[in-house]
Amino acid sequence: DRPLTIIAGPCQLESLDHAQMIAGKMKEACDAAGAQYVFKASYDKANRTSLSGKRGLGIDEGLKTLQEVGKSIQVPVLTDVHSEAQCAPAADAVDILQIPAFLCRQTDMLLAAGNTGAVINVKKGQFLAPWEMPNIVTKIESTGNRRILLTERGTTFGYNTLVADMRSLPQMAQTGYPVVMDATHSVQQPGGQGGSSGGQREFAPVMARAAVAVGVGAVFMETHQDPDNAPCDGPNMIYLDQMPALVDTLMQLDAIAKARPLTL
Amino acid sequence: DRPLTIIAGPCQLESLDHAQMIAGKMKEACDAAGAQYVFKASYDKANRTSLSGKRGLGIDEGLKTLQEVGKSIQVPVLTDVHSEAQCAPAADAVDILQIPAFLCRQTDMLLAAGNTGAVINVKKGQFLAPWEMPNIVTKIESTGNRRILLTERGTTFGYNTLVADMRSLPQMAQTGYPVVMDATHSVQQPGGQGGSSGGQREFAPVMARAAVAVGVGAVFMETHQDPDNAPCDGPNMIYLDQMPALVDTLMQLDAIAKARPLTL
Amino acid sequence: DRPLTIIAGPCQLESLDHAQMIAGKMKEACDAAGAQYVFKASYDKANRTSLSGKRGLGIDEGLKTLQEVGKSIQVPVLTDVHSEAQCAPAADAVDILQIPAFLCRQTDMLLAAGNTGAVINVKKGQFLAPWEMPNIVTKIESTGNRRILLTERGTTFGYNTLVADMRSLPQMAQTGYPVVMDATHSVQQPGGQGGSSGGQREFAPVMARAAVAVGVGAVFMETHQDPDNAPCDGPNMIYLDQMPALVDTLMQLDAIAKARPLTL
Amino acid sequence: DRPLTIIAGPCQLESLDHAQMIAGKMKEACDAAGAQYVFKASYDKANRTSLSGKRGLGIDEGLKTLQEVGKSIQVPVLTDVHSEAQCAPAADAVDILQIPAFLCRQTDMLLAAGNTGAVINVKKGQFLAPWEMPNIVTKIESTGNRRILLTERGTTFGYNTLVADMRSLPQMAQTGYPVVMDATHSVQQPGGQGGSSGGQREFAPVMARAAVAVGVGAVFMETHQDPDNAPCDGPNMIYLDQMPALVDTLMQLDAIAKARPLTL
Repeated sequence: DRPLTIIAGPCQLESLDHAQMIAGKMKEACDAAGAQYVFKASYDKANRTSLSGKRGLGIDEGLKTLQEVGKSIQVPVLTDVHSEAQCAPAADAVDILQIPAFLCRQTDMLLAAGNTGAVINVKKGQFLAPWEMPNIVTKIESTGNRRILLTERGTTFGYNTLVADMRSLPQMAQTGYPVVMDATHSVQQPGGQGGSSGGQREFAPVMARAAVAVGVGAVFMETHQDPDNAPCDGPNMIYLDQMPALVDTLMQLDAIAKARPLTL
Repeated sequence: DRPLTIIAGPCQLESLDHAQMIAGKMKEACDAAGAQYVFKASYDKANRTSLSGKRGLGIDEGLKTLQEVGKSIQVPVLTDVHSEAQCAPAADAVDILQIPAFLCRQTDMLLAAGNTGAVINVKKGQFLAPWEMPNIVTKIESTGNRRILLTERGTTFGYNTLVADMRSLPQMAQTGYPVVMDATHSVQQPGGQGGSSGGQREFAPVMARAAVAVGVGAVFMETHQDPDNAPCDGPNMIYLDQMPALVDTLMQLDAIAKARPLTL
Repeated sequence: DRPLTIIAGPCQLESLDHAQMIAGKMKEACDAAGAQYVFKASYDKANRTSLSGKRGLGIDEGLKTLQEVGKSIQVPVLTDVHSEAQCAPAADAVDILQIPAFLCRQTDMLLAAGNTGAVINVKKGQFLAPWEMPNIVTKIESTGNRRILLTERGTTFGYNTLVADMRSLPQMAQTGYPVVMDATHSVQQPGGQGGSSGGQREFAPVMARAAVAVGVGAVFMETHQDPDNAPCDGPNMIYLDQMPALVDTLMQLDAIAKARPLTL
Repeated sequence: DRPLTIIAGPCQLESLDHAQMIAGKMKEACDAAGAQYVFKASYDKANRTSLSGKRGLGIDEGLKTLQEVGKSIQVPVLTDVHSEAQCAPAADAVDILQIPAFLCRQTDMLLAAGNTGAVINVKKGQFLAPWEMPNIVTKIESTGNRRILLTERGTTFGYNTLVADMRSLPQMAQTGYPVVMDATHSVQQPGGQGGSSGGQREFAPVMARAAVAVGVGAVFMETHQDPDNAPCDGPNMIYLDQMPALVDTLMQLDAIAKARPLTL
């Protein structure tokens, strides 16, 4: 199996400069550790906890910015889409379309995304068992698209809490598609701060290390130079300056995990 | 408080005749028991477990059929919408727009639905705590629309299982809006049959009776004359011929519950 | 089916006077509403969250006190036991031995309790599915004792939270034994206050009403004239002066539920 | 931090020969990989799902056997105790007393165990949050005993299922005591086979690898040369002949994890 890919970036696009700064530093860290790097950012946060949550640059400026980051930093780019209509323009600008967890069962979204021919990263809904993912895979495959990634981002565990079940990783890998561990959303505390989600940033490296030792294709992490002042997901984003050491540790664990693959 | 409303109908529209048959029988049962009745059916099942699940009549024929049922049987009609674009045409045809549980956090959907001026019934997501509903209410209220219903339909409880927390009912009632108990979806077993959801039809009256004794504005139930051969949700729909007795029991419990309201 | 029984009393025995006061007031309320009444109190709290939690009168004085309450107020008495050795002396003093939820799988406890010939009330563990209770019943029945009650007291739901699944009631009733709803412990928040459990007293009537409408043999409730100053379980005990109205409401719901029994 | 300890052995003592065979093979595997090894077996299964489950050699023969294994194979030995009275004799025969998860809140058990002066390994109840463990630690410390281990063995996750939350490991480590990952019980499916527990043996290495990469003091695993014919816990025990490779992988992951410790 190939070495680990790191998918990382800020929760929300803030500006071209900011995106390039983060993409640049992450690429450097990944190059140093031998990881492939994919830049990640959202142009619109369509399902904020509350109406007053900031939604971002919007699709037009957002996609332009993402495309520019990809070109200038020379990295593949991932972004999330929120309706059928967004899939085609997003696929023109970025390499990987991400289906948000809440929307992972919306058949028309999956078909529209699949039809673009882009790589599709589906986040497993917080309400879904890992063995339900083949049904979702089949929807995408029906478009002829077999470039699929499946992401664990935590499962509802009582109220305002998620739990990441490590069994989900090899379970989803049985589809034959690469599995991604979302280390920062799985430590979210949904709605845990009333008008916004809380989070436990300190546990994100726990999730990343655990998943890599089990064996995954990629780790997804949101990162920011100043999470507490970021427009969204601050409580669970990882400090940008802690990423080089974390990525390096993950690559060391990955080498062992890939040399001794787990099979169910 | 006003007596209980019953929202009931088949999971999926099959034909005008079929819808009228069910609406007619339900209206008769509700009239006999003193309950207000609202007909419910879906014109499209947009998030079936698997691609091969039947999706229904489609929006054009579906909305026409729903409107005709409302007129001919003289009952208010509820249906669920699946995108911003569907809200306006659906509101022309029916009285109540329902936001599916998976979509309850999609801001643009909530705003589009609110802007129609129709009554909006939001199903609480399986991943949401009841005290997160005020954030959703605020999104709809921002459109000036204050005709809102909030529905409990079960919360994720491990894999392939939901649990209905009765505390959720008075908790959501603190918003000031009527609360609905969805007695049939809360006994679904999501993905529990591999390519489709399982269900425990026998427990639907358990949920309905419990909720009414706590005190709710309405009970939502899917019903069919032959659930095992229905195009969707068969395992959790209630047999149509069992509805008159159930509605009658619920109205008796409701009279006691309303005479002795619970307050938190 | 016979009318509802109310099992109620303080979490912990404080003194003979106090126990008689509560038993007396509860008996009066139950007589007025037509409910059978069983007094409940613990002589030892053997599994307090923290070491500094008060444990009570102890077994010798406690059992004497319980016996005296039973005689003087003329009511059956229930208490919980914590080891095999406690079963026989407790059965000499009271009518019903209760197996705590954490201990419901301890085979030797169940056999020792069963062997006394007393009625045995087993609380379903917070970690147990309702369909696992027949295995526990079989352990007790192996002693020849068929005087068994099964109690729902909530299931672990994420951290520091329980949820009461109303489906559990008819599910456990399939054993043929009476089912009890513990309306106050099912609203506990275990460990929710650090060194002690929190609770949501305001939701106890929600649990009681819901369960009675589904159909149960008894409701179990802890009550105190001043819960906030009680030695244990204060946050979830019901105010004693609210019990007469609650019991009366429950009896009205019970009459309807028993007239129209639910069967699975 | 010191290198990983492996605590392993059969669920239940079968005979001296059998115990020595397993202890011998495990010691060899651990020596080869540089891990410290502790032998584990139970002399009595006091909380079997059903009455007909085999309970084992009993305390007298069991403790003699355990002591003999320790002496002959030259390894520390761990066993679980089930009542206050068992603590002292067990501590005479073995090095580590284990408090079963269901009993982790029983104050008198914890005190009796602590008073022996033996090392005490407490399994976190399936109903407990990791941040409740300091209350349990305090109970043991009150005896003057500070030789404590804390074990994660999974948390109730819906019915018949456990989930192992990796956050629990660093959370419990904040007590200052070594944390143990029980990789085989956390993949149990309690009551999942009706009269006995099911399990998912294939996921035990997932749990072990994940936990070691996060950083733990020890991994606990049940193992048997023929799990499907073992008297208990067959579905989740690991094949003995797979242990050398697994232990070796764990030691490699442990070296990285210990070189780059996670701190909260």
